[in-house]
Amino acid sequence: MNEDYVARSAQLALLLEVSAYPKPGNVSRTHDFVDTRYEHFLASSVAVYPVLREAAARGRGKGVDMGKLVRRGMEECIEWQSGGNTHFGALLLLTPLAMAAGACESSDMGEIKRKAEEIMLNTSVEDAVEVYRAFPKAKVKVRRDVPELDVMDEASIKAIREKQLSLYEILKISASYDLISRELVGGFERTFRYARLLRDFATERGINDAITRAYLRLLSEEEDTFVKMEFGAEKSKYVKGRAKEIVNSGYELKEMKEFDEELIKEGINPGSTADIIAAALFIAILEGLRV
Amino acid sequence: MNEDYVARSAQLALLLEVSAYPKPGNVSRTHDFVDTRYEHFLASSVAVYPVLREAAARGRGKGVDMGKLVRRGMEECIEWQSGGNTHFGALLLLTPLAMAAGACESSDMGEIKRKAEEIMLNTSVEDAVEVYRAFPKAKVKVRRDVPELDVMDEASIKAIREKQLSLYEILKISASYDLISRELVGGFERTFRYARLLRDFATERGINDAITRAYLRLLSEEEDTFVKMEFGAEKSKYVKGRAKEIVNSGYELKEMKEFDEELIKEGINPGSTADIIAAALFIAILEGLRV
Repeated sequence: MNEDYVARSAQLALLLEVSAYPKPGNVSRTHDFVDTRYEHFLASSVAVYPVLREAAARGRGKGVDMGKLVRRGMEECIEWQSGGNTHFGALLLLTPLAMAAGACESSDMGEIKRKAEEIMLNTSVEDAVEVYRAFPKAKVKVRRDVPELDVMDEASIKAIREKQLSLYEILKISASYDLISRELVGGFERTFRYARLLRDFATERGINDAITRAYLRLLSEEEDTFVKMEFGAEKSKYVKGRAKEIVNSGYELKEMKEFDEELIKEGINPGSTADIIAAALFIAILEGLRV
Repeated sequence: MNEDYVARSAQLALLLEVSAYPKPGNVSRTHDFVDTRYEHFLASSVAVYPVLREAAARGRGKGVDMGKLVRRGMEECIEWQSGGNTHFGALLLLTPLAMAAGACESSDMGEIKRKAEEIMLNTSVEDAVEVYRAFPKAKVKVRRDVPELDVMDEASIKAIREKQLSLYEILKISASYDLISRELVGGFERTFRYARLLRDFATERGINDAITRAYLRLLSEEEDTFVKMEFGAEKSKYVKGRAKEIVNSGYELKEMKEFDEELIKEGINPGSTADIIAAALFIAILEGLRV
């Protein structure tokens, strides 16, 4: 697929995702965080365009270089806005997906999914090193149970090189506790499933409600990695359970708003869930979803 | 300047402009129109990226082709969203400015301004024809006092060709009543002046307030073309006067919100004013304004 078409689809996905409201706990057009405002996400979505286009062009044959693209994407994000980590998780998902879309002739989702899996399987040690180099800039929290790899410094990079771990192999380890890693090594199962859900919801309810409902549904099905790491297992279970209640009672707007206020007040932001919804939106837009 | 830098600066300008609130009468992150929603503006800002990039690249030497770029930009807008005219006025301003920025080595604003003037002076009959072809898709209202040119059909295009009128010459005629035309043939005087104002406001108040204040200031200084054409001279004067009161009393937020509600209720949207602020934001971002 044409690289500008792919890049625009990915960029629109980022913009629509961050704009949707009420989206319990996260930045939306109605909510800023203290340091990261809605405008920072707009600027960051603008910043990554050339990298997304290059990802699509790379997929078409100039060789796989996922790690470098993610790192460059993070550098662009920082150059264009001062709100800190806006799109690290989303970039990790969108980069191989954009490469896959660029490599495919048509918007056949089965083909894009297979190609994205293949790209992840073929990642190299250098891809791992580059993604690790992108980490500190993003100030992403990591769990302490892979001790030799959890500190984002030159020692970790040395360990990756010594053990000759590819990005895929590293993500295999973190997939046990990290939702984004699980997508990246698990064939983007949720991403493509939620793309279908988004299309169905959008037909019924328009784009904003489609996004907030898909987000809430995913939150009710999977514990969010950010929430679990920052606020612990109990809080994470509570968030999932509360999302499930709202989904089961039919996505009552009043309840969604209350849940949003509650999470915002406590600073609980289910960022991984938002990243996966952005990736799912990208797939849905590639297939023709329009506003 | 690098074409991706130029295109991103223009795109970010469109996104920040439409997001700012309260911006009396216009679409913002808190207001939709009936047919044109906030999301339509997001999608349209995404849609025009490749055209903005090409404008910057063209400026660097592949020949002036402003009309074609505007028409392609409008086609992209329509392909990516169904909300009707989102960015016609903004594209008319941003296209020659992006070409000028692409043609200049540095972000010297004097140089970019001179180059943009030169691009406008050098527009051709074909540029005029192409912009006229872009018109109907945008459903832009035109005044009836240039009778042979006001109907956006093949007869007008024939008249342009017969009289050998360049885009510059046609805009010279409409400059008497149209704010955008006045910018295009008047050396983008307001655009560059408001770029400076935006930078000053942003330093004091952050980006959102900078945009809403600059918008209100321009509304208080110039009657908006859209408002004048759709709602008549009296309403237009009232809007300008009301804006002046709010500016003079120090941009009271409560008053801005009330004015916004009032205009939204009556469907009065000062679209030309918003277009000029988007162009001014582009210049300010080119020079380094960041969120």
